[in-house]
Amino acid sequence: MSNSIHKLLVANRGEIAVRIIRAAQALGIPTVAACSEADAQSLPARLADEVRIIGPARADKSYLNAEALLQAARDSGANAIHPGYGFLSENAAFAQAVVEAGLIFVGPGADTIRRMGDKAEARRTARAAGVPVVPGSPGELDDLASALACAETVGYPLLIKASAGGGGRGIRIAHDAAELSREFPLAQREAQAAFGSDAVYLERFIRQARHIEVQILGDGQHAVHLFERECSLQRRRQKVFEEAPSPVLTAEQRQALCESAVRLARDIGYRGAGTLEYLFDSHSGEFFFIEMNTRIQVEHPISEMITGIDLVQWMLRIAGGESLSLRQDDIHIQGAALEMRINAEDPARNFFPSPGLVEELVWPQGEGIRVESHLFEGYRVPAYYDSLLAKLVVHGGDRAEAFARAEAALDATRLTGMATTIALHRLLLADPAVRDGQFDTGTLEPWLAERAALLAPAAPEA
Amino acid sequence: MSNSIHKLLVANRGEIAVRIIRAAQALGIPTVAACSEADAQSLPARLADEVRIIGPARADKSYLNAEALLQAARDSGANAIHPGYGFLSENAAFAQAVVEAGLIFVGPGADTIRRMGDKAEARRTARAAGVPVVPGSPGELDDLASALACAETVGYPLLIKASAGGGGRGIRIAHDAAELSREFPLAQREAQAAFGSDAVYLERFIRQARHIEVQILGDGQHAVHLFERECSLQRRRQKVFEEAPSPVLTAEQRQALCESAVRLARDIGYRGAGTLEYLFDSHSGEFFFIEMNTRIQVEHPISEMITGIDLVQWMLRIAGGESLSLRQDDIHIQGAALEMRINAEDPARNFFPSPGLVEELVWPQGEGIRVESHLFEGYRVPAYYDSLLAKLVVHGGDRAEAFARAEAALDATRLTGMATTIALHRLLLADPAVRDGQFDTGTLEPWLAERAALLAPAAPEA
Repeated sequence: MSNSIHKLLVANRGEIAVRIIRAAQALGIPTVAACSEADAQSLPARLADEVRIIGPARADKSYLNAEALLQAARDSGANAIHPGYGFLSENAAFAQAVVEAGLIFVGPGADTIRRMGDKAEARRTARAAGVPVVPGSPGELDDLASALACAETVGYPLLIKASAGGGGRGIRIAHDAAELSREFPLAQREAQAAFGSDAVYLERFIRQARHIEVQILGDGQHAVHLFERECSLQRRRQKVFEEAPSPVLTAEQRQALCESAVRLARDIGYRGAGTLEYLFDSHSGEFFFIEMNTRIQVEHPISEMITGIDLVQWMLRIAGGESLSLRQDDIHIQGAALEMRINAEDPARNFFPSPGLVEELVWPQGEGIRVESHLFEGYRVPAYYDSLLAKLVVHGGDRAEAFARAEAALDATRLTGMATTIALHRLLLADPAVRDGQFDTGTLEPWLAERAALLAPAAPEA
Repeated sequence: MSNSIHKLLVANRGEIAVRIIRAAQALGIPTVAACSEADAQSLPARLADEVRIIGPARADKSYLNAEALLQAARDSGANAIHPGYGFLSENAAFAQAVVEAGLIFVGPGADTIRRMGDKAEARRTARAAGVPVVPGSPGELDDLASALACAETVGYPLLIKASAGGGGRGIRIAHDAAELSREFPLAQREAQAAFGSDAVYLERFIRQARHIEVQILGDGQHAVHLFERECSLQRRRQKVFEEAPSPVLTAEQRQALCESAVRLARDIGYRGAGTLEYLFDSHSGEFFFIEMNTRIQVEHPISEMITGIDLVQWMLRIAGGESLSLRQDDIHIQGAALEMRINAEDPARNFFPSPGLVEELVWPQGEGIRVESHLFEGYRVPAYYDSLLAKLVVHGGDRAEAFARAEAALDATRLTGMATTIALHRLLLADPAVRDGQFDTGTLEPWLAERAALLAPAAPEA
């Protein structure tokens, strides 16, 4: 039986569903959009060759409903499923169920997802590959006594993290033994409630750390990196604004960082697109692996723009049995790229979600500008899902040109009908510290607090 | 008085007006859209900071009405006018009137426009700069007797061209003396009627010639080239599909061609963006200058995509008094780019214009895809102007990747409400000769005739 993809079920929604459909079309693969009832008239539904309604609007009844997705694949004759990001994309049981149903899961094997999804196991794997990890407990800690003992070696301040957590959830800080004694049992209870497991571990808290991640691509045998993304500008541990390459790495740091990621990918025989996230201490120049995402990420287009490589097409090609023909020596950084996440959130009201009807919509066009979005005029953004409306991605010959293009692209954007984060990006682009690349993961939140007034809706232009 | 641009009047419409507004916005220059009554609700009118209605729909009452444009500039306080392409963009009298009104004309001086607009004078200028020209009469020919004498030197077959012609108009072919005797007086009369001057000249007809043009940029002192565009796929001497770089030039041919263009640009102290058009004889490897366009061209984005340089921004910066800081050694060809002109024309009905209401509109998105268009859902394409709806421009790491992206981009395009040339581009992209780069300026018309049936509207997809 051939393992090539002859029809693809897209098990996601919004901009990433559009992105996947387009990548499949480019490879001549027919697509089936798996849509909740709320998304029946969405752009992915319009663009795919077929649509299958997989359940009601609520994600647990549709996009998280593995059985409905498998049924949709069977009914439509699709032999592969692309999970996108979020939802079931890093769910090992789903990946396994897909394969057991005789279908292709576009991503790594269930074993790899499980292994890298367990944060303690991921750290062990990284260490074994010679990749530096943040000093921390060797594994999970069962009780406070072992935590207190371990903390003496790790050093304070430290983080208590849920093994099954992710996306910034399930993390507490302890600055000393007293705080650790207070927070540890709370962290365990929270982990149990949120993730169904009370396993937690300790990790040194790197102050003024930058979040830098490396994009990799592997076919099981061979792996390459597409350099790094700088994702330090975060709010509530959610990325807001990303760039590639990082403005602070030296050539030597970049090489060491990226080679460490490839080493780990090769060690585990990684198959598909993946990202290794690191903390980077810009004072010491040290980097520490924190976790791996075994899926495509929201911010992947900036890596595509600086390398010219289409990651989603490669995911499909690899899943279809093709070997990775890219050679590391042929992958170069060309210029600089920025991504601005346009969310249906009101920056003047503490980023309160603001779904609504898209009234006027004009995207920017032109040299170095790329928009990834599922919006159209007359589309009603549903309240059930995350608030990402669009990714405005720009590329320039250098970082200064990318910033200039980003400002022009924001100016050229017309999006009315709901509050968005566009004003936030205007302020970020104009900020001297952002322009100089002087920021870390702790920069954005106090910065936002100071600028609340500036983010209030502007008076209509004259 | 400073010569910087503090407000720009955009004296054009459609996609190029949008393009110019966006370039001005990127430089922080406020814009005024000069619109005919038919274009009052157009996208340029929506995107510009101000709108001035310059007259009724008919172009001679609006976009060709120099006095109305100058009045709009005065009324709005604009101190510069960008003419785009077509309309008054190569009208020396208009350029002069703009300057005499104390305004900046975004383009070369009236003298340069006049000099290069006169085809015989342009040939003399090229020869003086050591740029090869098609063998032809040294200048204009007043009567048949001198034409017949001259034809013996030039050689048959030859073209009789109107000095004031352009865009493929005012050209006749003669294969021998008898045909020249018959056609010469007709060409004179036609030139008189069409262009107000009966001046004509002779030129050798290069069979199976390719149309290759060089993009240049100058600031009066210094000039650079942005390499060449291959524009041989033409219908009725109108370009349909363009690519950069040309798939047939050797590195040596490319260098000789591009350097000849820069030499001419420097010789005349060229200021702004311009294009030198050449015929290229792929049998002999010779190239011959045919004419210069002293304005931005429709197909400029493919040059931008292979070099990363924004031509329209440079036009504005140079017109505003800035020096051209680009150095030739820093300009490199990166990959390959294609432009597909999407026209409101029905390929199945001999390209009959098909203006109408834009019903559904979804443009492709993604790595290496750029769309330049003034369309939006609900926009009614007026019947008064040319039929260009959009330019679908793609870039790839190499020509094969650009072709693959172009096919995917066409597949991802949804544009209903009128017949368009999308089906034509699908056929072109799939054609082995086009894919191999084996075509010349005579290829497309017989190709179209053979494929009339294939261009009939397809049945709706299942």
